[in-house]
Amino acid sequence: MYKCSLERMKDKIATFSQFGDAGHGGITRYSLSPAALQARNEFERRMTAIGATIEVDDVGCMYATINGSDPSLKRIVMGSHVDSVKNGGNYDGILGVMSAMEVLETVVEQNIPHKHPLTAMIWTNEEGSLYPPAMMCSGIICYDYLPEDIRGKFKFEDMMKSKSILDNKSTFGEALEKSGYKGDKKYRISPDNYKCMFETHIEQGPILEDAGNDIGVVDCVLGMFNYRVRFYGQTVHAGTFPMPKRRDAFYAASLALCYIHEEIDKLGISDLVYTTGEVVCHPCVHTCVPDFFDFSIDARHEKPEVLEKVLAIVKSCAEKEWNGCRCEVEKAWNRDTVYWDKELVSYVKEAAEEIGVSHQYIHSGAGHDAQFCAYMIPTTMIFVQSKDGLSHCEPEFSYPEHCTSGATVMLNAVLKADKVD
Amino acid sequence: MYKCSLERMKDKIATFSQFGDAGHGGITRYSLSPAALQARNEFERRMTAIGATIEVDDVGCMYATINGSDPSLKRIVMGSHVDSVKNGGNYDGILGVMSAMEVLETVVEQNIPHKHPLTAMIWTNEEGSLYPPAMMCSGIICYDYLPEDIRGKFKFEDMMKSKSILDNKSTFGEALEKSGYKGDKKYRISPDNYKCMFETHIEQGPILEDAGNDIGVVDCVLGMFNYRVRFYGQTVHAGTFPMPKRRDAFYAASLALCYIHEEIDKLGISDLVYTTGEVVCHPCVHTCVPDFFDFSIDARHEKPEVLEKVLAIVKSCAEKEWNGCRCEVEKAWNRDTVYWDKELVSYVKEAAEEIGVSHQYIHSGAGHDAQFCAYMIPTTMIFVQSKDGLSHCEPEFSYPEHCTSGATVMLNAVLKADKVD
Repeated sequence: MYKCSLERMKDKIATFSQFGDAGHGGITRYSLSPAALQARNEFERRMTAIGATIEVDDVGCMYATINGSDPSLKRIVMGSHVDSVKNGGNYDGILGVMSAMEVLETVVEQNIPHKHPLTAMIWTNEEGSLYPPAMMCSGIICYDYLPEDIRGKFKFEDMMKSKSILDNKSTFGEALEKSGYKGDKKYRISPDNYKCMFETHIEQGPILEDAGNDIGVVDCVLGMFNYRVRFYGQTVHAGTFPMPKRRDAFYAASLALCYIHEEIDKLGISDLVYTTGEVVCHPCVHTCVPDFFDFSIDARHEKPEVLEKVLAIVKSCAEKEWNGCRCEVEKAWNRDTVYWDKELVSYVKEAAEEIGVSHQYIHSGAGHDAQFCAYMIPTTMIFVQSKDGLSHCEPEFSYPEHCTSGATVMLNAVLKADKVD
Repeated sequence: MYKCSLERMKDKIATFSQFGDAGHGGITRYSLSPAALQARNEFERRMTAIGATIEVDDVGCMYATINGSDPSLKRIVMGSHVDSVKNGGNYDGILGVMSAMEVLETVVEQNIPHKHPLTAMIWTNEEGSLYPPAMMCSGIICYDYLPEDIRGKFKFEDMMKSKSILDNKSTFGEALEKSGYKGDKKYRISPDNYKCMFETHIEQGPILEDAGNDIGVVDCVLGMFNYRVRFYGQTVHAGTFPMPKRRDAFYAASLALCYIHEEIDKLGISDLVYTTGEVVCHPCVHTCVPDFFDFSIDARHEKPEVLEKVLAIVKSCAEKEWNGCRCEVEKAWNRDTVYWDKELVSYVKEAAEEIGVSHQYIHSGAGHDAQFCAYMIPTTMIFVQSKDGLSHCEPEFSYPEHCTSGATVMLNAVLKADKVD
């Protein structure tokens, strides 16, 4: 039983929280931004200090590797991302990188015997906040292994042309060239040289906190669908057009949203989540009745049969007229539930038990690079309790004690994986 | 009884519809844009051709004047605007300018005796589509006469600094300088040199068409209030946060919008209009529950006591909790009903009767430059039937016969006003 260092973890949290510090408790650290390059430099500095070898692949993913006793064995990799959403917090992504570093630092400091080379990794551009889509580089690297309908979104050439949401002009490819972090394709993580992958991440929900557990043993990433629900009305002048003849698309969407909530509530599925987070309103001026309103609906659950029931309700909106408006329901994408490697999950569970940290099984509702990686090599995740369940916002917080426990669990799970050639 | 020319009106409609032609039936002709300058040049060309004198004031308003028989009398002015909303139609605003030109052309061609100088006028930047606010230059010119709470919005210095909605940088003042249409303040319309004002405009609603009347004798501009209804929730991740703990501001706003419709419907006020046209959603991404949603509500009715009842319903939203979200209701502005000058209205009514054009009394639900002008000098409006009640959109249409009838009614009403010194 080996333990990671609370003091060293605290120091890493304090250090990395400076890179992109927005001045009110959180960070904005877009992928390949100056703040992200600071984080990468700090990663390199700390890993070089413990004797790790640094490699960078052609999409900027960084790998810091320490040797094991058997040079013929594949690497065991731990990693996550250093980029954040706009006005995000100090834990999402970076905790997985800090935990991987902490594991390597502990192994070196305590001279812990291990056979496999161990690698701490930074996945480039997980959030896709500046250059969409999310999980861009795990999508590129795992391309050949992804299900066909997902794969189409991640063509290398298309990704290089992804435009900045800030200027709608400069591309991810240009940012990569400029960053100095465009390395060699030969260094990409692949089944040829990597045995398995661990990703530690904050939970981003309140389940662990509510249950009083510090650590989540993650068993899967939930399946989901993402649709657009669109309403077509007629723009008329706010002052001149009698109410009975109006076809107001915003009011139509509101009626439909209330209907969707009512109908889904009737299903009584306690662990379903669904979100209508993005809206488009046209022409969106106070003197015009909207002729178009569009909202996203994202629903997540482990069981496909549950998602089908929910989707049937969403689709039924298109069969009705809403305040005189026509409704269309269009698929954006969906994905099946991705289960983690059973053996790796059992290592995490055993490690948590042996350490005596409070824990439970949990699903991941959010997508992570690990999810694409799982199509390529055995993969699993470890969750750390999130305070108030908040994430993707500045108050995002996890106690350093829990963060350290997460790293300790990962360390001991990795050592279990190390025992198997 | 004098009549305007259908052929000449058709020619003007065809000509002016080219300036800013968006290629699919309508125009985009922002104030002081190249397309608007083409319209101004054409106005000058046609008015100079009939011997009118052209003047331009310091905010770009243009005045084309023909003399009357008594040089000591004040001018009678007819006018509207040449600017449009984005993807607007070929009638809103420009019809009033074309009608004013048509009246002057008819007076000159038929050598119609009149005592007062007669002026056709272009008000600058009525729509405020590129440089807000709407009715900017009538606001500036009528500043001293406006009610105090309206006036504050139209300070000359502030208006010159109004930024383009396209680049959020270039200002109205800069555009005015560049346009070559910054003239002399001494030419501004004022009670010293102008007796009264007529504005012909499309109805922008379906009331005349539904009643089978070509022309509206407008008696007032409806009073209105404009408020913002805001909902404050909590952003959480779409995949990780259980439904019962969510505080979704978009869902909250939808519930409240349905409540507002239900409660206002119960009042049973058939001639009330209210519109929720502008929305703001934050952070507006499909993977986040919105923590903020805000919609405008614009309600219009002749009677203040009716508007008070409606406002009480809107304000009651702030006393409730909506899906765990707090609600705030904030006033943007309101205005009282502005009644047109009774004598001028009677001239329009008599002219319509004498000509034998089908007509009715009607309120204006929309704001117009005439409404600010009415605080300064006697003012009235004439409406022309709108096909399907559509406006501020490309299908906006009025029959040339109705447009010509509108000009004929204005001509004969102006001649009635001309009889009174």
